[in-house]
Amino acid sequence: MMAETLIKVDLTQSAYTNEKVHNRWHPDIPMVAWVKPGDDFIVETYDWTGGFIKNNDSADDVRDIDLTIVHFLSGPIGVTGAEPGDLLVVDLLDIGPKPESQWGFNGFFSKKNGGGFLTEHFPQAQKSIWDIHGMFTSSRHVPGVQFAGLTHPGLIGCLPSKQLLDIWNEREMGLINTDPTRVPPLAAPPFGATAHMGQLTGDAKAKAAAEGARTVPPREHGGNCDIKDLSRGSKVFFPVYVPGAGLSMGDLHFSQGDGEITFCGAIEMAGRVHLKVDIIKDGMSKYGIKSPIFKPSPITPNYKDYLIFEGISVDEEGKQHYLDVNVAYRQACLNAIEYLKKFGYSGAQALAILGTAPVQGHISGVVDIPNSCATLWLPTEIFDFDINPTAAGPQKFITGDIDLPLSPDL
Amino acid sequence: MMAETLIKVDLTQSAYTNEKVHNRWHPDIPMVAWVKPGDDFIVETYDWTGGFIKNNDSADDVRDIDLTIVHFLSGPIGVTGAEPGDLLVVDLLDIGPKPESQWGFNGFFSKKNGGGFLTEHFPQAQKSIWDIHGMFTSSRHVPGVQFAGLTHPGLIGCLPSKQLLDIWNEREMGLINTDPTRVPPLAAPPFGATAHMGQLTGDAKAKAAAEGARTVPPREHGGNCDIKDLSRGSKVFFPVYVPGAGLSMGDLHFSQGDGEITFCGAIEMAGRVHLKVDIIKDGMSKYGIKSPIFKPSPITPNYKDYLIFEGISVDEEGKQHYLDVNVAYRQACLNAIEYLKKFGYSGAQALAILGTAPVQGHISGVVDIPNSCATLWLPTEIFDFDINPTAAGPQKFITGDIDLPLSPDL
Amino acid sequence: MMAETLIKVDLTQSAYTNEKVHNRWHPDIPMVAWVKPGDDFIVETYDWTGGFIKNNDSADDVRDIDLTIVHFLSGPIGVTGAEPGDLLVVDLLDIGPKPESQWGFNGFFSKKNGGGFLTEHFPQAQKSIWDIHGMFTSSRHVPGVQFAGLTHPGLIGCLPSKQLLDIWNEREMGLINTDPTRVPPLAAPPFGATAHMGQLTGDAKAKAAAEGARTVPPREHGGNCDIKDLSRGSKVFFPVYVPGAGLSMGDLHFSQGDGEITFCGAIEMAGRVHLKVDIIKDGMSKYGIKSPIFKPSPITPNYKDYLIFEGISVDEEGKQHYLDVNVAYRQACLNAIEYLKKFGYSGAQALAILGTAPVQGHISGVVDIPNSCATLWLPTEIFDFDINPTAAGPQKFITGDIDLPLSPDL
Amino acid sequence: MMAETLIKVDLTQSAYTNEKVHNRWHPDIPMVAWVKPGDDFIVETYDWTGGFIKNNDSADDVRDIDLTIVHFLSGPIGVTGAEPGDLLVVDLLDIGPKPESQWGFNGFFSKKNGGGFLTEHFPQAQKSIWDIHGMFTSSRHVPGVQFAGLTHPGLIGCLPSKQLLDIWNEREMGLINTDPTRVPPLAAPPFGATAHMGQLTGDAKAKAAAEGARTVPPREHGGNCDIKDLSRGSKVFFPVYVPGAGLSMGDLHFSQGDGEITFCGAIEMAGRVHLKVDIIKDGMSKYGIKSPIFKPSPITPNYKDYLIFEGISVDEEGKQHYLDVNVAYRQACLNAIEYLKKFGYSGAQALAILGTAPVQGHISGVVDIPNSCATLWLPTEIFDFDINPTAAGPQKFITGDIDLPLSPDL
Repeated sequence: MMAETLIKVDLTQSAYTNEKVHNRWHPDIPMVAWVKPGDDFIVETYDWTGGFIKNNDSADDVRDIDLTIVHFLSGPIGVTGAEPGDLLVVDLLDIGPKPESQWGFNGFFSKKNGGGFLTEHFPQAQKSIWDIHGMFTSSRHVPGVQFAGLTHPGLIGCLPSKQLLDIWNEREMGLINTDPTRVPPLAAPPFGATAHMGQLTGDAKAKAAAEGARTVPPREHGGNCDIKDLSRGSKVFFPVYVPGAGLSMGDLHFSQGDGEITFCGAIEMAGRVHLKVDIIKDGMSKYGIKSPIFKPSPITPNYKDYLIFEGISVDEEGKQHYLDVNVAYRQACLNAIEYLKKFGYSGAQALAILGTAPVQGHISGVVDIPNSCATLWLPTEIFDFDINPTAAGPQKFITGDIDLPLSPDL
Repeated sequence: MMAETLIKVDLTQSAYTNEKVHNRWHPDIPMVAWVKPGDDFIVETYDWTGGFIKNNDSADDVRDIDLTIVHFLSGPIGVTGAEPGDLLVVDLLDIGPKPESQWGFNGFFSKKNGGGFLTEHFPQAQKSIWDIHGMFTSSRHVPGVQFAGLTHPGLIGCLPSKQLLDIWNEREMGLINTDPTRVPPLAAPPFGATAHMGQLTGDAKAKAAAEGARTVPPREHGGNCDIKDLSRGSKVFFPVYVPGAGLSMGDLHFSQGDGEITFCGAIEMAGRVHLKVDIIKDGMSKYGIKSPIFKPSPITPNYKDYLIFEGISVDEEGKQHYLDVNVAYRQACLNAIEYLKKFGYSGAQALAILGTAPVQGHISGVVDIPNSCATLWLPTEIFDFDINPTAAGPQKFITGDIDLPLSPDL
Repeated sequence: MMAETLIKVDLTQSAYTNEKVHNRWHPDIPMVAWVKPGDDFIVETYDWTGGFIKNNDSADDVRDIDLTIVHFLSGPIGVTGAEPGDLLVVDLLDIGPKPESQWGFNGFFSKKNGGGFLTEHFPQAQKSIWDIHGMFTSSRHVPGVQFAGLTHPGLIGCLPSKQLLDIWNEREMGLINTDPTRVPPLAAPPFGATAHMGQLTGDAKAKAAAEGARTVPPREHGGNCDIKDLSRGSKVFFPVYVPGAGLSMGDLHFSQGDGEITFCGAIEMAGRVHLKVDIIKDGMSKYGIKSPIFKPSPITPNYKDYLIFEGISVDEEGKQHYLDVNVAYRQACLNAIEYLKKFGYSGAQALAILGTAPVQGHISGVVDIPNSCATLWLPTEIFDFDINPTAAGPQKFITGDIDLPLSPDL
Repeated sequence: MMAETLIKVDLTQSAYTNEKVHNRWHPDIPMVAWVKPGDDFIVETYDWTGGFIKNNDSADDVRDIDLTIVHFLSGPIGVTGAEPGDLLVVDLLDIGPKPESQWGFNGFFSKKNGGGFLTEHFPQAQKSIWDIHGMFTSSRHVPGVQFAGLTHPGLIGCLPSKQLLDIWNEREMGLINTDPTRVPPLAAPPFGATAHMGQLTGDAKAKAAAEGARTVPPREHGGNCDIKDLSRGSKVFFPVYVPGAGLSMGDLHFSQGDGEITFCGAIEMAGRVHLKVDIIKDGMSKYGIKSPIFKPSPITPNYKDYLIFEGISVDEEGKQHYLDVNVAYRQACLNAIEYLKKFGYSGAQALAILGTAPVQGHISGVVDIPNSCATLWLPTEIFDFDINPTAAGPQKFITGDIDLPLSPDL
């Protein structure tokens, strides 16, 4: 028996027309369906932009997107018997692209519209398209590399309670208020104009839209964690804050590297998730849970031979930072990009690889003042050629006649 | 044919009496031995404190240690033909404890003497002793857990050139000068009084001791990276800055978790390293190398079932930080500690586990403003009992009659 | 762009009515489609029995099946440019059940109709049904166990040349003729009455049906290898014997243990295969290839904790055999079954687990006269409870109120 | 505290002079030491030939050895409280070569003196010497290959009871008597002249020597299983047949492929084993145990990219055999040897690789009449060059100026 598809999405229609989709977090968003503990079912999702980014060779869409529209999530789904304080146990039985949409995108936002981890080095909009071939992917914009997907929802979690929502809004506004005119802003505050509140309408919608938390950051409930290892086959334990739990998900990634350093984003795709739910009553206090915990999948890509790049918290200008893992990881990424350029890749191509392939980012040392140490693990087996260092030096396997489309700021 | 032991250490004698040991980085420290590319050889080392920490049930030594004496390194070893700009290729053929010293220590420094990643939560000196049984370890201070070692040198690298040394001292003093009276200080400046400069004597020693970089932080040459995956069987490519390279190593760890969050430190031990060296001429420019790169070992513990804890960059007071991976990883660690306490562990025991076992720390999201997301991966197979969450709730397998020795500040 | 589906099967129609299906090997079977090197495409297949075995709770169909009808294969597919002596390179990009058919079956044939590896111990027809939940499977007939599928085609290969077909028929008839009245027979000779020769009709069909090799055994071309590791993501190099190669496949398994000891069979299912083809010209002589070679998938179940059972070539009656791996593996299997019975499983349930789960069978010693040694590796993580031996002894987690349906011989 | 070394061996002295060594199985052999459940201790061993095979470049010793002297085992060790019917739980905490003996040997016996799995193809004595470099090995006789050791005792087990010994002798003599003049014989019967019965002397020794079972085959107690996965870090559960168990071990292998197809043998070495023992009372009946079971090590070589060779039970003359895994595995081995010859290896070098590297041998199909299917898994990462098939064809990386020493029959 095929599991029931609780939520369907039509990629030819605007996500705003689908009442089983929403793009803000708010406890008033009505459940779109109810399931029982032990049920398994299927949920379809838009890509995180609701189809704004197209399968073509221009980065104009990446440059021009209004980022207040994201992320389009499917849900919320109610689970009978779930109450605040419980843990919702979610088995991700399978995840994949929609059959009619066997591709995904990766991009870098312009520094003026979102930026990214390396935006000082890649300040303009660029995009690569990745074709999905069964379990594998490759890109016409990034030659010489193909890999098996570690497919996962970038964003999944339960509805917050009103109390939790208020905490979120208060602490994030507090941060924004420390530098309110900053571009880009320090956080993404509620923004009603582009809110999609599911089945809410009228005043109820307007009120919730004005309060609803943006979906950008990960928070206590999980949400936009962008953890590549929440992959198909994994089991996640989510805190429950409202009766029925209200599970929503979206932002599916065919593959992603640790950190999602490209921001726009992983290999982003529309797709479907097959999941099963269960409940651990009172699990939050039983296990002292404040944030989701999870167990990895028994089926993941077995890449094992890595070339590992170290970075320390001295930045690219030579300035010393104090035990700052972000700076250290940025150096490790930049070191890897410089390395890959020796084989013929453009910097943008190298960055796209780090953002999409199952790259690991490890926190390797956080106590040896003043330098943190972070490592970036690049799987060597995903390349069509040998990238290991040898006495003979690197060979330029990549000829340089192909690069990522770039759309200059207007 | 047994490989030659180039450097021997006598654990019953002070490390200061051993001329093949040093505890500062300086290009003037004379090579203690020369080898050729292709040679393999053995180097013995003290533990990082030179034997100050004892195998007993008191944390007084952890509380009282003078941290300016560390780290006692064996070397430097010259490699004929190595020149600045080359890469020194080091195969770590084997690493292990000294036969007469089958144990190691882990501790937390007092907040007044070094501190650590969680020093606000564990502000006083504590210590645990770990017995080594072949490939495995367990501790009389931390019941219910045993694991295979991912053994590695916490500290290994080549001598800096004078020019590089000057850069180090300048940038670190710059940081210290932003808050010169801070306790603990922002960085560890040169300190001649406790310097051990190997075979240098007299004025030459005094001059070098006054300039020699402390061994505490990782830097461009590698050094105190505390990367658990630089384990036996791995292959490391080190930048060379002086003629002959000058390879030194020490701070051996029988096992360690990502981050070495306990600071004092991993499972610290005296031991021996069997290594082989080779050279890639002009490798730094050929491959665009600024920091060491390495390849993992084909033999590592295969732990695969993990319980994974998420943390976001909202601190334990609820304050919002901006994309700060350190804060996020700290929350993931604290979440794991709370979880383990439900099974009967003290917080100190839980922290000791995170500091010693092959725990992974991943940088999971660094672009979703304002929250970074970090994950701590706890291998479940190292416990004598099942730590997975179940509907029945946790069982207190640990009775609480044993804890880590604690030595209050005097 | 979705890959094209070259061959479709309608599970509500008899496989004999589908002209793109055949159940014998013969060079005269016409190609049903042509592809070019580099193409990827999708092929649907019946289950190996063409739908004879049903999703119900009776083993009558397993008892009553006419085994001369198997295996229903989809193909042959021509590859332009492929010539005898080449290697056909096949990437198995994905494999899965048909969406409308999310289940599979495992059974034991009656000793009077096919038998199996342990037919002396399980002489009557039995069956279990396995439901497919995304990447996982479980059975209403075998409680307490679930696992991720290592999905693969049990049967895949290229058409034989007439010369090769003659060799097959000659050597297999030679074996049959050593004991022509044996039940079951020593091999399966050509049998025209139930042959399905694809698009052949009339005399051409009759001639080919009379000569066509049965699909039961693996042979030089691969064929019915039942190698669980030819799983999705693997890459196979097949010898080519006829112009165009003529690739056919079927007998899909959601999962199987090494040896497919239950014979009927693995977890057998109807499904679809997404594959890509390429050619190595003259590859057979270049690489000295007589049988297919392959590379494993980068994505396979990561089960790693095994309980391993040894068997030696002394049979269950205590009789000494000379270096006979079959006898040794049979003992290892019987030892595992006895072990599992201590936890409450029936012997039939235990055997069904060995036939379906990703069990490994290793040839561990073949030279120590007179005993071979074989090992059966049972993954412990697939059980809902702990099957490791402990001082307390086994606990009967399985209550024994459920068993496999059995249909006595008529 | 260093674990105690219970048994020491002096490689400069004959094994026959060491009273803590024996080379036959008999319940009367006195325990050489007693330990308690929970103890860990170290045992040194000779190589299986007691030092007969030398580290040189002649195979004369392999040709000339008297095989009735093997295997020299260290033990038996008594475990207080162990009684017949118990399971002896043995943790292999570490295994390695003796410090003064960092090498091992692999050889093929002459067909006239022992032979081997491929003796028809390699009928004369040959030998290769393997140097041990920490965790790795390479051979001056087999260029282009190096690998990490999967180190294990080829032979380990408990003393048989008199009753069990009688069963062994009876059934093996029964086999010999079916063809008593065969060369080589079908089994190895008791042979007093070269027996070493440990501390037994005089008449007691003579009686036991006349009855003592040869150590060649694996049997119910384990013994000479040559299972490569009984490696350091694994945990083995042995049946106990005599009071005190009487654990003996030897025949240490630095590394070996599944099947130990070269017979003489793996990479054979003298060494030491660090082990820990415990008891499960009445474990044989509790768990239905007839042969040892074991759990694999958490630390093993992680080689994961394999080239896999298939073999079916049609022999090299084209003759059809009935479901014979031995024939199928032999074909898989021969197919791999032919493949490796394309890269320049001699057949003998290729065979030496299959006998020493961590090659896997899987029983892939045992029910598809008349052909069994076996697979040989060759790890590709152990080679200095790429052995994967490509459109360009193989390159002769091995120049052929080095080969294994061969000593023709006299």
